[in-house]
Amino acid sequence: MLYLEDFAPGQKQVSGTLRVDAAAIKAFAAQFDPQPFHLNEDAARSSFFGGLAASGWHTAALTMRLLVDSGFRPAGGIIGTRAEELKWPRPVRPGDELHVEAEVLEVRPSSSRPGQGFVKCRTTTLNQDGEPVQVLVMNLLVHERPR
Amino acid sequence: MLYLEDFAPGQKQVSGTLRVDAAAIKAFAAQFDPQPFHLNEDAARSSFFGGLAASGWHTAALTMRLLVDSGFRPAGGIIGTRAEELKWPRPVRPGDELHVEAEVLEVRPSSSRPGQGFVKCRTTTLNQDGEPVQVLVMNLLVHERPR
Repeated sequence: MLYLEDFAPGQKQVSGTLRVDAAAIKAFAAQFDPQPFHLNEDAARSSFFGGLAASGWHTAALTMRLLVDSGFRPAGGIIGTRAEELKWPRPVRPGDELHVEAEVLEVRPSSSRPGQGFVKCRTTTLNQDGEPVQVLVMNLLVHERPR
Repeated sequence: MLYLEDFAPGQKQVSGTLRVDAAAIKAFAAQFDPQPFHLNEDAARSSFFGGLAASGWHTAALTMRLLVDSGFRPAGGIIGTRAEELKWPRPVRPGDELHVEAEVLEVRPSSSRPGQGFVKCRTTTLNQDGEPVQVLVMNLLVHERPR
């Protein structure tokens, strides 16, 4: 468990991997993003994506799962408050195997919440070819070490 | 179906509503964000959240569902490329009833992709008390009208 004082810019964390198949892409889409290019191979072929593609929000959710399962353990949990950037440079495809590389960019105490602070992290989610499928810069709320 | 030329800053869209219960919060968390405060009422009580709270990524996914089900119909689909802001001012709680208010902020043609452009939207997700639970500023890829 890491308190605010334990974080420093430049620290890195690499997650394990997670494979995404067509069934998972469609199941997420059916619940949260029911657009043809996330649900059906034929419809996807004639879309912007040119083939079945995961919802960006599915990629974001899988990124969170990889991060929670990694050794990244801020005190109090991984609590995102505000993202400054979230982009999907390319879609996640059926069969992709993803992992996440996280890097601490900035650490600062909160001006309004005594005993708490913010750790700004960039998480890059990569496929099996090392191509980024998501870049997220998120501010996490982290507790200071109890005195 | 709306092409790039049909969008203008200030246009607004309001979604229907969607109720979130504890079972849905825990099911999403078990799959994508298995942290105690999203999974278990007792563990959540002593956490930062003070009670069961939905994962922010669950809130984001529900926001997408509300947007897809609304009358918001860009040509080619709702394709987010890059968010400039994503924040969760307060958590979604069991029993919350959410809706989304979307507003077009900016419309611009793409400099690199002929026939396409970007519509920057702010979507604000609100609970039954009118309190924002998520604010997202997203750039959508939208096709120009075929000539």
